[in-house]
Amino acid sequence: MTTTATAEKVRTSTRAKTMKAIVKAASAPGIEIREVPVPTVGPGEILLKVKRAGVCGTDLHIWIWDRWSQGRVKPPVTLGHEFVGEVIELGAGVVNVKLGDLVSSESHVICHTCVACRNNLGHVCENTRILGVDINGGFAEYVTIPAVNAWHIPPGIPIEVAAIMEPTGNAVHTAFAGPLSGCNIGVTGCGPIGLFAIGIARAAGATRVIASDVSPYRLELARQMKADAVIDVSKENFVDRVRELTHGRGLDGVLEMSGKPEAMRDGLQALRNGGRLSLLGLPTEPFDLDWNRLLIFKGITLHGIVGRRMYETWDQLDQLLRSGRLDLRPSITHTMPMERFDEAIGLLREGKAGKVVLVPWGETA
Amino acid sequence: MTTTATAEKVRTSTRAKTMKAIVKAASAPGIEIREVPVPTVGPGEILLKVKRAGVCGTDLHIWIWDRWSQGRVKPPVTLGHEFVGEVIELGAGVVNVKLGDLVSSESHVICHTCVACRNNLGHVCENTRILGVDINGGFAEYVTIPAVNAWHIPPGIPIEVAAIMEPTGNAVHTAFAGPLSGCNIGVTGCGPIGLFAIGIARAAGATRVIASDVSPYRLELARQMKADAVIDVSKENFVDRVRELTHGRGLDGVLEMSGKPEAMRDGLQALRNGGRLSLLGLPTEPFDLDWNRLLIFKGITLHGIVGRRMYETWDQLDQLLRSGRLDLRPSITHTMPMERFDEAIGLLREGKAGKVVLVPWGETA
Amino acid sequence: MTTTATAEKVRTSTRAKTMKAIVKAASAPGIEIREVPVPTVGPGEILLKVKRAGVCGTDLHIWIWDRWSQGRVKPPVTLGHEFVGEVIELGAGVVNVKLGDLVSSESHVICHTCVACRNNLGHVCENTRILGVDINGGFAEYVTIPAVNAWHIPPGIPIEVAAIMEPTGNAVHTAFAGPLSGCNIGVTGCGPIGLFAIGIARAAGATRVIASDVSPYRLELARQMKADAVIDVSKENFVDRVRELTHGRGLDGVLEMSGKPEAMRDGLQALRNGGRLSLLGLPTEPFDLDWNRLLIFKGITLHGIVGRRMYETWDQLDQLLRSGRLDLRPSITHTMPMERFDEAIGLLREGKAGKVVLVPWGETA
Amino acid sequence: MTTTATAEKVRTSTRAKTMKAIVKAASAPGIEIREVPVPTVGPGEILLKVKRAGVCGTDLHIWIWDRWSQGRVKPPVTLGHEFVGEVIELGAGVVNVKLGDLVSSESHVICHTCVACRNNLGHVCENTRILGVDINGGFAEYVTIPAVNAWHIPPGIPIEVAAIMEPTGNAVHTAFAGPLSGCNIGVTGCGPIGLFAIGIARAAGATRVIASDVSPYRLELARQMKADAVIDVSKENFVDRVRELTHGRGLDGVLEMSGKPEAMRDGLQALRNGGRLSLLGLPTEPFDLDWNRLLIFKGITLHGIVGRRMYETWDQLDQLLRSGRLDLRPSITHTMPMERFDEAIGLLREGKAGKVVLVPWGETA
Repeated sequence: MTTTATAEKVRTSTRAKTMKAIVKAASAPGIEIREVPVPTVGPGEILLKVKRAGVCGTDLHIWIWDRWSQGRVKPPVTLGHEFVGEVIELGAGVVNVKLGDLVSSESHVICHTCVACRNNLGHVCENTRILGVDINGGFAEYVTIPAVNAWHIPPGIPIEVAAIMEPTGNAVHTAFAGPLSGCNIGVTGCGPIGLFAIGIARAAGATRVIASDVSPYRLELARQMKADAVIDVSKENFVDRVRELTHGRGLDGVLEMSGKPEAMRDGLQALRNGGRLSLLGLPTEPFDLDWNRLLIFKGITLHGIVGRRMYETWDQLDQLLRSGRLDLRPSITHTMPMERFDEAIGLLREGKAGKVVLVPWGETA
Repeated sequence: MTTTATAEKVRTSTRAKTMKAIVKAASAPGIEIREVPVPTVGPGEILLKVKRAGVCGTDLHIWIWDRWSQGRVKPPVTLGHEFVGEVIELGAGVVNVKLGDLVSSESHVICHTCVACRNNLGHVCENTRILGVDINGGFAEYVTIPAVNAWHIPPGIPIEVAAIMEPTGNAVHTAFAGPLSGCNIGVTGCGPIGLFAIGIARAAGATRVIASDVSPYRLELARQMKADAVIDVSKENFVDRVRELTHGRGLDGVLEMSGKPEAMRDGLQALRNGGRLSLLGLPTEPFDLDWNRLLIFKGITLHGIVGRRMYETWDQLDQLLRSGRLDLRPSITHTMPMERFDEAIGLLREGKAGKVVLVPWGETA
Repeated sequence: MTTTATAEKVRTSTRAKTMKAIVKAASAPGIEIREVPVPTVGPGEILLKVKRAGVCGTDLHIWIWDRWSQGRVKPPVTLGHEFVGEVIELGAGVVNVKLGDLVSSESHVICHTCVACRNNLGHVCENTRILGVDINGGFAEYVTIPAVNAWHIPPGIPIEVAAIMEPTGNAVHTAFAGPLSGCNIGVTGCGPIGLFAIGIARAAGATRVIASDVSPYRLELARQMKADAVIDVSKENFVDRVRELTHGRGLDGVLEMSGKPEAMRDGLQALRNGGRLSLLGLPTEPFDLDWNRLLIFKGITLHGIVGRRMYETWDQLDQLLRSGRLDLRPSITHTMPMERFDEAIGLLREGKAGKVVLVPWGETA
Repeated sequence: MTTTATAEKVRTSTRAKTMKAIVKAASAPGIEIREVPVPTVGPGEILLKVKRAGVCGTDLHIWIWDRWSQGRVKPPVTLGHEFVGEVIELGAGVVNVKLGDLVSSESHVICHTCVACRNNLGHVCENTRILGVDINGGFAEYVTIPAVNAWHIPPGIPIEVAAIMEPTGNAVHTAFAGPLSGCNIGVTGCGPIGLFAIGIARAAGATRVIASDVSPYRLELARQMKADAVIDVSKENFVDRVRELTHGRGLDGVLEMSGKPEAMRDGLQALRNGGRLSLLGLPTEPFDLDWNRLLIFKGITLHGIVGRRMYETWDQLDQLLRSGRLDLRPSITHTMPMERFDEAIGLLREGKAGKVVLVPWGETA
């Protein structure tokens, strides 16, 4: 039946046997740069030559080997879930990409079978395996992904931006979880995903975007991403300032990107009645809420957000990038060789970076 | 312009001067039955001769004079926000009801002007005044309400059922806040609104309704309201039982009616990924949540619910009652004279009642 | 109960007895400028001193006395349903505006009682009476409106723009009937409401706005309203050009503003599968459609649009204007004394105007 | 990466070489029963031993060789797009089903790559190939389908019902395209999909289901599917009867299953303002509409419906069947050997059948 599919594997050239990769090698802090086998390609899979990769807070957690990492990651595993690459090998049955295509990658490898998958909620698939966390990822010269996870890079997009479509998709997913057009939107937390969210909310029609953080460095990046106003919550009261900026109306929506209990409580309080708070930031601990005052009496809708809708989110992001309405470049503060991964981790730990993009061995910036 | 409106007040007959009423008379526990003036009628308002009234948990809180009541209620005020009555006087400008009509009453008197009201979210109006809480209510022989708050009783509905459309509306609002058709719905907490919700979810197309409580008395009422299964959470594990009953799927939606932290946590855990929890039950204290595990990683949507959509909820309830698909009678366990209000409060305190309906002075059951 | 309401009428000053007005006086083409009584104010109503008014295609239809007008309008009636004015008298019970407020007016006077009204669909109230069509309107020195129909003018908005919030609301309603953020939006027909829709779609986050018309004059106005591309359908094939401009994707949404059968068929054909077409333009005659090819096999959603959501649409428009994201001024091509109404009608007939704004007697431009 | 997948094909037993099949063999009316090769299985595909199959109006069109068929079908092709079978062979990479599973089949084989597919609108994939129309289908002893198209039969469902999940899904898709809970729903046209829709609307929470047709035979089947009322439009006026049955309210939604212009016009007229009409029935010719009166002034939403949402619709249907709320058996009027296909076609042509189910060679009823 599949007359147009690849019945057998197809390759561009002689295949390398080994490659360099950033490997979580042991149950302890840190990583190792190792020579490992180039991954194989099964039916429906493709092999990418990695061009650029982005460093995520999750990579920092795994580097540090925090409690979450200890419960989830099984060394050895190659890290990296944000990347762009060129297709250099097609597994059997692949029809949607061809050799030479430049693609970014959805990082969730899903089962297509569970109740979530069957309801177009693949982003919360019960059996998700994440590239660079549960299975080998893209901090390497090559990476294998399911062909269906590939997204063709829109024309005219810088390669660094193409590398970070995955985390930008998190921000798109959060922003698009509720109304944006004509809305007053708050973004609490100006790490990379918060920064992306500012630009997205603006491009997607929010009439006012108000961003908050405690870091002057990050607030300056927020301004560069075109926030209409920024609030330094180490110095100013978020709720009061929002009320002032919105002439008493309050926010129509909040995109929570910090994982901080106070940001969430402030965000809820700053919402107008009937508003929504979309929650992507991961708290480090459980925390309490005055449910009656902050949620129930206000008729708030709260969204738990993870991953990206597969693949509406990618299409929305594609349109935003392709049209030129969204410019992510101010959020990318560093580009460096993959070899210097530990240095990138250091920048993240010190809060001295927006998004850091890595250049694999053999690629040139 | 208003050629069809009532330019001046219209009355059925000579007007009584005083009436009996259940009055929160002092800042202390208890109530008084007093002789008070029959309320006046301003432009856009109507006077009702009360036929039946329902007793609510809120009335219990005010009777007890708990912390919430102390902060909100300003004695003296006539209690009662669930009632049905006959229209006996029309204020100037009223066109939507006529003398002799039998109407139930929305209890939220709203401003029609704030940002919530202007967005069809009158149920979370920033300036709501609630009948029987902030302004005089319907535990009396007569009550004045805005004409727009009147809902004509659908034909063939027992007068006791007509009396409790307001709290049933809370359950409709909660249930209709997310998908019902073809869904597995959990109802946590089988007080009166939980009981209504069971019947509503069934009538509105849920394929399985699972109810939980700790009281065998209430669980028996839940069965009478046609729950497909009931779980006594004092004896059984909610999450395990749900998983068993749904063959591993989990719930598509939870209607939280208990205000108990454990019910909410269980409800979230029992949801399938991508499900929704609609939260009407009011917790007595703030409580914490493992946000990552229970909400974010599961992609859950949480709705804070209060009041009734004005007036979609009333229309939905009207259709459910009118069609005969929803029978609320099993949830009404007691009907008694308004004079015996303290006895009704006693039944509620002891958990020995579903819904209690009161018959005003001069009316006969 | 209504302690804050106006129990009796309140006026700013001695009341004029008569005024000038543009009256549809007879069942024949044309209008008369007459001296008529200043309207009275009933409970819940307010009197406005008119500051500016907009001329609509509907006014042209009534002037011409076409078939629709003959079936609907009952002379004598004062025309005008787009206007802004100062509040100079309050009827009994009015609380939401005060003397001296500057307000624009929703033109639909609704019943608040029918099934549509009770479902927050007041814009399709079964008993709507339209100002300037069914009851006296605002082409006059004074006009009476229901207080609830008043919308406070956002600060900083030019008075000419304030005058045309009503028709701009039509465009907001149409645009917001489906997704906008990140979407490719077509606007077929560049009369005033089409022009507004272009600006709205841009401000509300559409990534590409493509407008079509047959008039070079209107297409130039479309460019000034910031259309990303314009198509002269007298010279170019709409579907082909859209396909080219969207790199084969097609449109995500079409806002149909022309009432032309060909525009609607083209719009449907140019939609991607699963897109939406929102239909505000009124065809002059019934026309046919290849339902299978254009609608069913493509999984299209079609919205019939009339009026403005009361009052979400007004709030959305308020936010767009207040933020400065939407600038309507390029669409206003003429401002002239109300006395010269026939000249305004002439411009509309000849297609030589965008929106025409009128200045009442005694006001100065 | 795909550690759990089938690297190579797996079979239950020795494979048959040829099989019997109903083949559209020539560009002319009629079909042939032929001995053809058993289909092969590519990566991601599975082979089914067919257990039962349903006959559809589309099969009738192809039999007759009408204009649509002539433009679409390329003989020779094995017919049949509604069927249930046992999995007897797995292609490379298949993980979601195993040998021996009993599955029904989605009939749309989609590309997973076009803009519709990438937006979870696979049912309107731009590159759809339909089993039994564009590629070989299930009126045969064996059929190959993509593994992802397989839906596991819920436990306890009769095999005849399992055979017709695909067309029942059309009805679910149509019904679930708008609100059902608490709604008055009209079903215009009581062919098999209309009959399914009646049962679905009832089970999914409609408070009143009103069905129409011109055939007393079909109206009797409609009653058996639990329509609350049926209207014989050859004798009664649809709009008048609906108004009477709904006490003047009109319908909240119409499911159009007939493809008749008059049914669509009547359906639109019988809708309350703001209602929805979901359009599955395929008209034989373009036809006109009074757009202003029937659609625009009423604020109607119209949905073009085709196929089934992949796979929300299947999950919804699964829940309805599994719970016992939906019983499709009254709609299945005939079960007969596949050998007697021409007889089944005859019954359909004469309107003397609801759904006809076929039993393949070697299977016993």
